[in-house]
This record gives sequence, C-alpha cells and structure tokens, in this order.
Amino acid sequence: MRITIIGSGNVATHLAAAFKNAGHRIVQVYSRDMQNAALLAYHVKAEPVDDLILIDPETDIFIIAVKDDAIGLIAEQLAPYQKLMVHTSGATDLYALLAFSDNVGVFYPLQTFSKAKEVNFRTVPLCIEGADQAIGKQLKELAQGISNSVYDINSAQRKTLHLAAVFACNFPNYLYNIAQQILAQHDLNFDLIRPLILETAEKVQNNLPAAVQTGPAVRNDETTMNNHLQLLKDMPGLQQLYTLLSQGIIKMDIDRHGDK
Amino acid sequence: MRITIIGSGNVATHLAAAFKNAGHRIVQVYSRDMQNAALLAYHVKAEPVDDLILIDPETDIFIIAVKDDAIGLIAEQLAPYQKLMVHTSGATDLYALLAFSDNVGVFYPLQTFSKAKEVNFRTVPLCIEGADQAIGKQLKELAQGISNSVYDINSAQRKTLHLAAVFACNFPNYLYNIAQQILAQHDLNFDLIRPLILETAEKVQNNLPAAVQTGPAVRNDETTMNNHLQLLKDMPGLQQLYTLLSQGIIKMDIDRHGDK
Repeated sequence: MRITIIGSGNVATHLAAAFKNAGHRIVQVYSRDMQNAALLAYHVKAEPVDDLILIDPETDIFIIAVKDDAIGLIAEQLAPYQKLMVHTSGATDLYALLAFSDNVGVFYPLQTFSKAKEVNFRTVPLCIEGADQAIGKQLKELAQGISNSVYDINSAQRKTLHLAAVFACNFPNYLYNIAQQILAQHDLNFDLIRPLILETAEKVQNNLPAAVQTGPAVRNDETTMNNHLQLLKDMPGLQQLYTLLSQGIIKMDIDRHGDK
Repeated sequence: MRITIIGSGNVATHLAAAFKNAGHRIVQVYSRDMQNAALLAYHVKAEPVDDLILIDPETDIFIIAVKDDAIGLIAEQLAPYQKLMVHTSGATDLYALLAFSDNVGVFYPLQTFSKAKEVNFRTVPLCIEGADQAIGKQLKELAQGISNSVYDINSAQRKTLHLAAVFACNFPNYLYNIAQQILAQHDLNFDLIRPLILETAEKVQNNLPAAVQTGPAVRNDETTMNNHLQLLKDMPGLQQLYTLLSQGIIKMDIDRHGDK
C-alpha cells in the first residue's frame, strides 16, 4: 500500500518503520517541524512535508499519529482527499474522524514507544476499528502484515484498554522512578534493582498478577510496613502512596482468599 | 562447601538449587513441615529434617531463609553449633544474628522468586554483609560462585534497598492486577496488555525511568485524565490512586524540566 504518515513522534516513527519493513511504500511524512519530518522521512525513504497544502493525494491511507487534541483539526483538512484515514490514539473515539468522513478507522498499537529503543513490532498488539466491515477487514490485513497480535476493538473497549495501559505502564514506570530516587539518595546504584523490575514483569507474562504478588503487604507484615513508613518520614507524599498501595494489596488478597 | 538450608520457601528453594548447581553439597534442608523439607531436599539431594534437634553439625554454613520474625528464634537454636550463620532477609538487621553469635552475615538475593518460575541466578544481585572482613570475604566468594552481581551492602543500605524493591516490584505488580481487573470487567483479555508490561520494564534496563515516562500525566493531558477518572467513577479507591500517581508524575516532570 501507499501510506502517508501524519506526525513524527514515537508512534509515527515506529509505525512508519514497521510498514516500510513490511514492504509498503511510505509516500510522505508530515510534521509541522520540517527537521522532524525530514529525519523520519529519510529513514523510510519518503518525502518530508511541513504543510498540509503539500500533501500528495496519490496515497491509499493517511495514518494520523499526532497528539489527541490535533486529530480532529488534521482530519478536517485531509477529508477532502477522500482517502482512508485512521488515527492511532487509545484515548480518542472513532467519532473524532467520523465527523469529517465515512472512510475512517482506528489503528491503535498498544505499546509504549521510545525513539531510543527498538521494538519488535510483531509482538505489538494492534487494536483495529473500522467505520464499516470492509474498512475493518482492510485495516486488519494491513495490521497482520506487521504484527502477530491483531484485535478487533471498538471505541468503548479501547478507552478501557487505554485506562488499563496507564495502570500497567505509566504508573509502574513512575514507581520505578521512586525506587531509583530512594536509591540515589543513599548513593545506591539503580542497577541493583533493574533485574528485579524485569523479573516482576516477566512473571506476569504467564501468571495472573494476584497469583504472584510478593512483599510485606501481601504477607500482612506490619513490622516491615511500619519500618518502611518510618524510612519515608520526610516524604509525606510517598508515605501516603505507600499506605494506599499496601492497603490495596491487602484488600486484593482478602478478595482472593477470604479474610484469614 | 557443606551448606545447610533452613527453610523451604521461595528463597530457600532457589538458593539451594543455585548452590547445588555450583557444585556445593547441601547437607540438610530443614522445615517445620516435613513434606516441604522432603520436596526441596529431594531436588538437591539433601537430608530433610523437621526438627532442629536433628541438625547435623558437620556443615560449614547455615543459610537461614525463613520468615523475618522467625530468624532470631532459629539463630538462637543454631548458635551452639558455632558455625557460620547467615540470613537472607532484606528487611532484617545483621543484629538479629549478632545477638547470638559473632560468626554471622547476610546473604540477601534482591529478586522476586516464585516456585513456578525458573530464575537465571547468575543475573540475581546478591547483597553481602559479614560481621567482620574475613566473613565478608568468605560470603563474597560463595556469592560469586552463583551470581555475576555481588555487592557489599550494610544493614542500613539493605533497608533502603528493600524499601526501593517494594516500589520497584510489589507495587507495580499490584498495578498490573488493577489493569487486569479493569480489562476483565469489560471481557478484555489480559494478553492484550502483557507485551506493554514487559516493554515498560525493558525500557528502564538501559534508561532512567524519568527519561522514558509516557502517558497522559507527563503530557499534562487533562482531558484524558478526566475521562479516566470518569471511567473509574464507581471505584473511589482507584480514583484516589489514579490522582495521587498522576500528580506524582506531573511533579516528577516539573522537577526534571522546571515548570513549563
């Protein structure tokens, strides 16, 4: 297919590379910032553009991978080309595109992307929604060309997924940051704890999290929890967070096993 | 070395196997529960015992891998043998052993162990403390025989590490559980989000967490955060957690970059 990439951020970058590797032709890369457009365009052998006036109509699909609040503005300007348009946002309804065209869909990669790190796209879950069955089928084929995990997900489900992703990715990463800060305050290297972080994530690849919960809260070890709160005495925000998360773990375990 | 394992839980099991694989002889495995003692003893070709009266004094080291509040009781009963004794607890001071003997140390593997999942012990950070330099040296050699990551960590540092481990492991696992519950409530498969969990942990293996933070909070995307709080409206505990974690991420980003 001839594919036009709108955006040059993390999602745009990784998607463009995956499509290129799968043998598609990237026609253009658009970014408001010409330098960003040029950088990505160079990698995927496309033409960079920094003005929507310069969009080449000879394409099959516009992949709109921009900030959520810009999706509608972009879609409105691309609609006159009457080509298939999809956005890549977990938090945005299909309606953001349907307001401007019927030939639309969603192509949401459920993964966290950083420019600094390569991702094996074949393992990235792709959540597909089409404005009608034919579009859904077309997007699914496109998706299956770059990933082994393709799911039909409607807009309501996608919002739930996006919320779950915040708990599964954004919040754990912030907790990693807290751990790193605590270590740094005592001149301890973050390397000490990196294997633990990885193993924790690997354990739930084949188990449910509740079944592999460890730590003082699930053992209801009040002595250790009180010692930890004492260590956090100069950080009231972290004390509050520690208490809230520990209470959650205790409750989770009661819900699983009944009150012991 | 001749090694006696006191305990039959996750840490005892994985440590015993690692020592056995490194060519050491496991003399006995002690557990109050004979079935548990026998199961682990069978795997490492040791004698199972369920009473400390039956301890064989012909050993070089007692590895006390039991619940924190039982360490003192066990140490008191093993002290008369005058052999090297170590505990494996992140949360327990060396003093818990020093109260009974001078020939003591700590051998703390900073990893989360489940009986269901194998661990490559060579990547497990081992935190070593000896009551004196000679003991420290001896423990370090023992540790280096089973792991490539051996650290000298005193009791105060170990408490900090243990606290950091709760933020890096126990709390993220609980957040995975929340994600799984949110998905289950909408009949969505946890598989959808497993690659995201793994990638999030892999990203911080070579980056600092603050540098790779993603999600609505770090973008200060209030629309999405409000939508998420709306989705959680029947779960006030999760709303509170969502707000606290999001505020923490916003503050972390301001601390890094200044107020934008």
